[in-house]
Amino acid sequence: MKTLAVIPCILVLLIASVRAGDSLPSWNDTGPKKAIIAFVEQVTRPDSPAFVPVAKRIATFDNDGTLWAEQPIYFQNYFIFDRIKALAPQHPEWISREPFASVIKGDLKSAVAGGDQAQLEMAIATQSGMTTDEFEKAVTNWIATARHPQTGRLYTGMVYQPMLELLAYLRANGFKTFIVSGGGIDFMRPWSEKVYGIPPEQVIGSSMKTKFELRNGKPVLVGLPELNFIDDNAGKPVGIQSHIGRRPIAAFGNSDGDLQMMQWTDAGSGPRFCLFVHHTDAKREWAYDRKSVNGRFDKALDEARAKGWTVVSMKDDWNVVFVGDKK
Amino acid sequence: MKTLAVIPCILVLLIASVRAGDSLPSWNDTGPKKAIIAFVEQVTRPDSPAFVPVAKRIATFDNDGTLWAEQPIYFQNYFIFDRIKALAPQHPEWISREPFASVIKGDLKSAVAGGDQAQLEMAIATQSGMTTDEFEKAVTNWIATARHPQTGRLYTGMVYQPMLELLAYLRANGFKTFIVSGGGIDFMRPWSEKVYGIPPEQVIGSSMKTKFELRNGKPVLVGLPELNFIDDNAGKPVGIQSHIGRRPIAAFGNSDGDLQMMQWTDAGSGPRFCLFVHHTDAKREWAYDRKSVNGRFDKALDEARAKGWTVVSMKDDWNVVFVGDKK
Repeated sequence: MKTLAVIPCILVLLIASVRAGDSLPSWNDTGPKKAIIAFVEQVTRPDSPAFVPVAKRIATFDNDGTLWAEQPIYFQNYFIFDRIKALAPQHPEWISREPFASVIKGDLKSAVAGGDQAQLEMAIATQSGMTTDEFEKAVTNWIATARHPQTGRLYTGMVYQPMLELLAYLRANGFKTFIVSGGGIDFMRPWSEKVYGIPPEQVIGSSMKTKFELRNGKPVLVGLPELNFIDDNAGKPVGIQSHIGRRPIAAFGNSDGDLQMMQWTDAGSGPRFCLFVHHTDAKREWAYDRKSVNGRFDKALDEARAKGWTVVSMKDDWNVVFVGDKK
Repeated sequence: MKTLAVIPCILVLLIASVRAGDSLPSWNDTGPKKAIIAFVEQVTRPDSPAFVPVAKRIATFDNDGTLWAEQPIYFQNYFIFDRIKALAPQHPEWISREPFASVIKGDLKSAVAGGDQAQLEMAIATQSGMTTDEFEKAVTNWIATARHPQTGRLYTGMVYQPMLELLAYLRANGFKTFIVSGGGIDFMRPWSEKVYGIPPEQVIGSSMKTKFELRNGKPVLVGLPELNFIDDNAGKPVGIQSHIGRRPIAAFGNSDGDLQMMQWTDAGSGPRFCLFVHHTDAKREWAYDRKSVNGRFDKALDEARAKGWTVVSMKDDWNVVFVGDKK
């Protein structure tokens, strides 16, 4: 027992020494990096008038466009398309029914053009009737092998290195890091711990309803063809309250869908930190903001500027974008 | 920074030395205590074939009747009754409308006799329209002062000492402890950390819908007059999956409402531990099981016996019942 107990002890000391060096090497020494460090020191220094106890150091992160890329369409849609293609032989009616017909033809832009209703139909088609264990396996297999059509990378290779450093830096300073994403909770959880160091119980997302039943005496949770919750826009503070039950002191996003999460975070008492990633790097990633379908950054950009929230320019503030890339 | 980092280190060593002694002094040396210790050692010994990594050491606890008492009616109902009485002057129509009329007259048995529908109406009446911050304050004030009509104790003085020891023992062994209760999530969270050492983000319960809005430019979450989720019976595995996203390896309950949580826990691979508290002590607490309205323990008692799950007899297995009591 005692031997085991010493392991976290050593880890803590290792973390302390990492912190002494540069925990954010992929961040240039520009405003955002300085603002992050100033905030963290402000809330963690025991003699700081703005000191925040560890239990209250809650930080929430959007996923698509904040922790990994989201162009030309949300990565979860590639998963859904692959599922639809795999299931198509069992659904001959899909050949003449949108959005399935477009997916089967490979016309992915048309498939997503149907908006929220089409998204919901596709999510239902690929998740309902499956047990949660079966769905988890499908995601785990897909994320290990599927590749982005433009970069040829694994999707987990399109995670932002500076954000991985930020997550680790916050955790080393006693923060509990959560994902708060419009994406599917069941799509993120199977790989969030391995990729981001965020365990499933700290992932909040959109969801379908599930039902408990005994199948041949074996308990299962089965996906129902019914939306449970949309964790986007005004849904983000609701999801945060439902899952965490306390207000974050720091929040990280990249689009108008994150605006209410920022407002909710910012309105608490004591020190607050809100940061948006602005996609300004057409060469290393994509450049888009006010007019993008995915990750539109318009109202939130105005409000960030008006309120003095931190806005990261990927082009200027990050010296590495994707994990595994070199400076 | 380094000074701070050493604190968890010292804590870890303290915990290790506590474990070396008797971590469960309020438990008699009977079967349940032996079964708990055997399970914990089995999953935590590094050389054990049934070793479970820390991240997967998830333990879920029912609240009413498992962590604190639940007789003669659920304690949350006393809170609701007190709220209704306080709000009654603003609702003259309640004098002639059940279940409110019974509450105002002080006839609490009649007030709860209306079943789920009456419960829902009362919950709506006392929570909807309030912000989450306002509701939290109301609960915090009530729990600090209200007293149980039969024992005269604070409700937090009717928490079971042996279960507090069990929670601490599991946490000292790397478990993450969660509450999974049919009670209101917003009713438990304001005091769960102080009383049980369980932070709000590890509390799962029944809930009303909430809505995000800006009131005079200030973001608030407001309770809506609509049920969101009932975290009881078959709802417990659904709540566990939704909030935790992985299956517990140990679960603790006391009634038929916990049966599906136990089935779900027990059906995972590897070592599993399911424990029911059986209320057998009419002298120190209450004695009830198959015919009780609150905490009925009938089907689950049969299944526990059939499956060899652990059943604690409060009378025989606990030498102290309530926190603060002496042997």
